[in-house]
Amino acid sequence: MKTFFNVSDLGNLTQALAEAREVKNNRFGFQPLGKNKTLLMIFFNNSLRTRLSTQKAAMNLGMNVIVLDVNAGAWKLETERGVIMDGDNSEHLLEAIPVMASYCDLIGIRSFAGLVEREFDYAETIVNQFVAYSGRPVFAMETATVHPLQAFADLITIEEHKKSERPKVVLTWAPHCRALPQAVPNSFAEWMNAADVDFVITHPKGYELDPKFAGNIKVEYDQRKAFEGADFIYAKNWSCPGVTRPADYGKILCNDPAWTVDQEHMSWTNNAYFMHCLPVRRGLIVTDDVIESPQSLVIPEAANREISAEVVIKRILEGL
Amino acid sequence: MKTFFNVSDLGNLTQALAEAREVKNNRFGFQPLGKNKTLLMIFFNNSLRTRLSTQKAAMNLGMNVIVLDVNAGAWKLETERGVIMDGDNSEHLLEAIPVMASYCDLIGIRSFAGLVEREFDYAETIVNQFVAYSGRPVFAMETATVHPLQAFADLITIEEHKKSERPKVVLTWAPHCRALPQAVPNSFAEWMNAADVDFVITHPKGYELDPKFAGNIKVEYDQRKAFEGADFIYAKNWSCPGVTRPADYGKILCNDPAWTVDQEHMSWTNNAYFMHCLPVRRGLIVTDDVIESPQSLVIPEAANREISAEVVIKRILEGL
Amino acid sequence: MKTFFNVSDLGNLTQALAEAREVKNNRFGFQPLGKNKTLLMIFFNNSLRTRLSTQKAAMNLGMNVIVLDVNAGAWKLETERGVIMDGDNSEHLLEAIPVMASYCDLIGIRSFAGLVEREFDYAETIVNQFVAYSGRPVFAMETATVHPLQAFADLITIEEHKKSERPKVVLTWAPHCRALPQAVPNSFAEWMNAADVDFVITHPKGYELDPKFAGNIKVEYDQRKAFEGADFIYAKNWSCPGVTRPADYGKILCNDPAWTVDQEHMSWTNNAYFMHCLPVRRGLIVTDDVIESPQSLVIPEAANREISAEVVIKRILEGL
Repeated sequence: MKTFFNVSDLGNLTQALAEAREVKNNRFGFQPLGKNKTLLMIFFNNSLRTRLSTQKAAMNLGMNVIVLDVNAGAWKLETERGVIMDGDNSEHLLEAIPVMASYCDLIGIRSFAGLVEREFDYAETIVNQFVAYSGRPVFAMETATVHPLQAFADLITIEEHKKSERPKVVLTWAPHCRALPQAVPNSFAEWMNAADVDFVITHPKGYELDPKFAGNIKVEYDQRKAFEGADFIYAKNWSCPGVTRPADYGKILCNDPAWTVDQEHMSWTNNAYFMHCLPVRRGLIVTDDVIESPQSLVIPEAANREISAEVVIKRILEGL
Repeated sequence: MKTFFNVSDLGNLTQALAEAREVKNNRFGFQPLGKNKTLLMIFFNNSLRTRLSTQKAAMNLGMNVIVLDVNAGAWKLETERGVIMDGDNSEHLLEAIPVMASYCDLIGIRSFAGLVEREFDYAETIVNQFVAYSGRPVFAMETATVHPLQAFADLITIEEHKKSERPKVVLTWAPHCRALPQAVPNSFAEWMNAADVDFVITHPKGYELDPKFAGNIKVEYDQRKAFEGADFIYAKNWSCPGVTRPADYGKILCNDPAWTVDQEHMSWTNNAYFMHCLPVRRGLIVTDDVIESPQSLVIPEAANREISAEVVIKRILEGL
Repeated sequence: MKTFFNVSDLGNLTQALAEAREVKNNRFGFQPLGKNKTLLMIFFNNSLRTRLSTQKAAMNLGMNVIVLDVNAGAWKLETERGVIMDGDNSEHLLEAIPVMASYCDLIGIRSFAGLVEREFDYAETIVNQFVAYSGRPVFAMETATVHPLQAFADLITIEEHKKSERPKVVLTWAPHCRALPQAVPNSFAEWMNAADVDFVITHPKGYELDPKFAGNIKVEYDQRKAFEGADFIYAKNWSCPGVTRPADYGKILCNDPAWTVDQEHMSWTNNAYFMHCLPVRRGLIVTDDVIESPQSLVIPEAANREISAEVVIKRILEGL
């Protein structure tokens, strides 16, 4: 495996899930693969789960890990071409990328959407430069449009908890006080479309996800109808993806508290599990009682981030 | 050992000191214990000695170490319950704790006193949440009220330098330009009360330490009388513990330079060693000549932080 | 080797270059040297290449590495003596140095020139305190006046690419929007003077480097004449070294864009390679087409930082 951004990078999903189980049962069993190999984790944005779980996964595999916080302790990086660099940015990505790559064997990168220019974000302008100029395998630790380590961990978690062959999984939008990227719902939609589940999306009008990820899944705009019979409720806020009205890209179109997932919402489901990628704003996305209930899977989901990361890094190491 | 906050967590002190000697002579001799084990060090506050010495101790034991600075590179954490999270804090400790715990085997935590609400600080509200919700062994890298890795290192240092069976050890308050927590004097008092020493505390009126730590040790308010015959002078500033007047909690009640430890002060002693946990403000706590004198133990004390941390982590690993 | 600041610390340069080749071909071949040894990297200033390459080099050698960013996550350090410390700085270097040293086996330090007091900078006041008080081997990761890991990597790169026995190497000043230290040109000049090359320096009047580093190399003030017949062009900005007019120390005396290295400049040379230590400001130091041309060595130079660091750390380990 040379890159990891989309579900297709994993190939056969059933095999990938089997490998996840194997890794989970034998986390330290693949250390010869990682010996004298170095993972460079590059953060343009904050991180808790991804920072810890990816580092842990690489150490499980016997690797060396270097963490670089670009905005703390390193030079600020210029990301655009043809600029006279007389401002704050001391170094150009075009130099920084091959330089950073020369000190490692594979690169994990976190670079969020700016939510200003849809085209810039959805072209994955920053991350594609790493793919083009690093000469190293690159995997996403959340980019402008995708968060596949999260989606893979979510799928592993659903697989571990499903009670029927083909469970009903609902992705529901929920309110938030800030404009958030679409990376998590994009990847979750893409992965659920590829998985053996009955997948439904529900959100207020205007929040339609890019078809590149959501495919032709029908949106159920009535949240209650969407929740009926659900086995898994996956809550997440996202800002306007700008699919129907590009001018609204990155905007907050709705803050209706009726979309907050509470006990009443959960009562409409088939005793569904509650999922969220975290960090979660309590009182906005979900109520305290739902997230603290026995049906809440937010902690097992997060714990599976170590597993999804280990499978992905293991496969990249095997391909070196 | 499951937690390390108080002197009682170590059990028999004589045995613990013997183990410290053994570890100091054979720092790398216990690496099988740490193989494939991960220490997560969580800092809510700055650190130099604790950061380096604890990391070194864990690496001596063959462990993997992940350092998390909560206020740099991670999300800001909400620590109170029942809040609608529409402010700066992106994540709740109640999620963050079990998530962080899922990527490690033991947790070291630094979380200073806020010095605003005595009850909040002295209930160890933050740290107790880690103990309650992490499911992992947790040890203090200085909390709101205790700094036991420092006190243990201090005791090791006294043991290495004492010239009599039962030396006289004096904890003296000294002035400082900022309001400081009571964690260091609390733990030092608690540990000296448990050790085989003649222990005296001296400070201006109003600085009485909480009896939970100071026990029923008599305070000698006359600094000169306290210093007479002393074998070890342990200087430290602390703000008002609020024991006699809760309204004064966290306040600076005195900045009398007569309390600064200088050569004249040391001349009252039995050629005592000078100790301080560092960082120290020269010119306020102690004069240049005293801290640079041959009787100054501040560097050996700091070096023993590696040893106290290694003993504590070793015991936790043995109990996993 | 106990310290690494100047070219003379390496001894015979031909042997050092041979050792660099050996290390480059066998990066992981010296791990027994580093086992249970800890490198402490102390940064008072930002870093990308040095941070990553030095860490990688130490991990190649099987060492443990601790990275300390003094201004992020640690206490602010007082660097002057005889001060009453009632300001921002919580700890004095005179305590911090031996403390930090007690947790490691060798120290790499980055501490840039302040560019305010020439005497303070050129006396290497900060770094010399580390040498004097740490009791550990100390090497420069760029100090106030030298950057020898860069110069050594530059020499390795020239050695790998030279087409004649004794190539012509030109160090050219180039414009920049900020006042920069002289560490890189100082070390480059010092190393080129010691190497078997025909070395020329060119810069506007007033930018004369300190003879301690530049020796008695004649400066060619006509940039075009200097470039004629050159095999390697090494571009770098630096602020006034204050050799001829101490009052100008650290000032920008010239921002003439005619000094920017572009294709026309390169056409004056013997099809020279272009070199720069990075980070580089495109449009000021060099044009996009030159730095992206096949003659540009900026990436191989940076990659050789891993090698120069590994040779230096290896020699220090051998001397422990």
